[in-house]
Amino acid sequence: MAIGVRAMHLTIVPHVLAVAAAVMVLVWCISFRGGLAWDSSDKSLIFNVHPVLMLIGFILLSGEAIMCYKSLPLSKEVKKLIHLVVHAIALILGIVGVYAAFKYHNESNIANLYSLHSWLGIGVIVIYGLQWIYGFLVFFYPGGSGGLRSESLPWHVLVGMFVYILAVATAAIGFLEKLTFLEVSGVDKYGAEAYLVNFTAIVTILYGAFVVLTCFTQAHQADDYSYSAI
Amino acid sequence: MAIGVRAMHLTIVPHVLAVAAAVMVLVWCISFRGGLAWDSSDKSLIFNVHPVLMLIGFILLSGEAIMCYKSLPLSKEVKKLIHLVVHAIALILGIVGVYAAFKYHNESNIANLYSLHSWLGIGVIVIYGLQWIYGFLVFFYPGGSGGLRSESLPWHVLVGMFVYILAVATAAIGFLEKLTFLEVSGVDKYGAEAYLVNFTAIVTILYGAFVVLTCFTQAHQADDYSYSAI
Repeated sequence: MAIGVRAMHLTIVPHVLAVAAAVMVLVWCISFRGGLAWDSSDKSLIFNVHPVLMLIGFILLSGEAIMCYKSLPLSKEVKKLIHLVVHAIALILGIVGVYAAFKYHNESNIANLYSLHSWLGIGVIVIYGLQWIYGFLVFFYPGGSGGLRSESLPWHVLVGMFVYILAVATAAIGFLEKLTFLEVSGVDKYGAEAYLVNFTAIVTILYGAFVVLTCFTQAHQADDYSYSAI
Repeated sequence: MAIGVRAMHLTIVPHVLAVAAAVMVLVWCISFRGGLAWDSSDKSLIFNVHPVLMLIGFILLSGEAIMCYKSLPLSKEVKKLIHLVVHAIALILGIVGVYAAFKYHNESNIANLYSLHSWLGIGVIVIYGLQWIYGFLVFFYPGGSGGLRSESLPWHVLVGMFVYILAVATAAIGFLEKLTFLEVSGVDKYGAEAYLVNFTAIVTILYGAFVVLTCFTQAHQADDYSYSAI
């Protein structure tokens, strides 16, 4: 491990940031954008499902899944189970969130998959899914040989960090894209909503930075099974 | 070190990606957007200086500065000198590139510093500058004590990776922001220019990923002084 900080102490900061980001995206989508709906004649309410599910369901839950493997005072096997289950929930919520964006586009006659945000988002979901399947097969069931596991572990951590950072970047790009559309339609560039959306993106980036930093900290003291790939 | 790949072999890939990204941003700004100018009645030519300097001058040069410390077959002292000089050049070109954006805005009566891209960009330049100054003082001249150096090294690497990833994300956000403005003004969402800009962003992200991956590889074999903070 590279830095002399205990994961459990450090993760207090990202937990607080996660709550802040969740509250901020809900305030934005509910108070400023009129709320969420799966079926509505006001199609913008269908869009609002997208940022809420992608941020709270995908980014924040994934971050917690990553951190739990280092920070929880539990055995390796229990942490591994929490890690893979929370990642699976995050992935499913992320896929539903992506579907909400397509649903909004299709019902509003807006083109699909032309923007960098959409391309990166699809890339993230695909890599994330493959990473989950590979991790499940090699580290959980049926499980690879000892050699394959130790060869795979640093790559699992590195690819995981890469796709997570890409997910956070894609989220930031998404906030900017939506806000740019809103500003072109008349939302004040220096108004409360613009500040709220930009600060939600910044809190999300800070959360992502702390999640990745957790990978370089020391696991819980009582745990003899901490991974130390990086 | 976490993965059994030699830095010098791996860095062939990002070098090729760097050339590709440089050519792509030049083709975009010159062939599609009319070229570059510092003073012009066509203010968009002043803007074009911004993506060229930020990508080639800042992102690509910084990446080379990061990688050289692991990949070059030279002594630690020589690599350190190259590392800090190339980072300084990248920072100066980056500051000039940021100035070009302000110059374009001011001469075109466009508001400054309202977007997430601009906020993150200013944050990156400030953190990058502070990181450079701290690195210079502690690792180069006058140099800190042995204890301070070994305490600082992993943080230098982690903060450096953080600000570099943030710089790459800010660049991707910038490409999307500019393309969104162009598309609102009539540029085809599925046309050649849109694909060129989006793929430039994707090549830049891949380059950034390989730069960061280099930090986890093994230094050149002939070098006994390789750092191993992470």
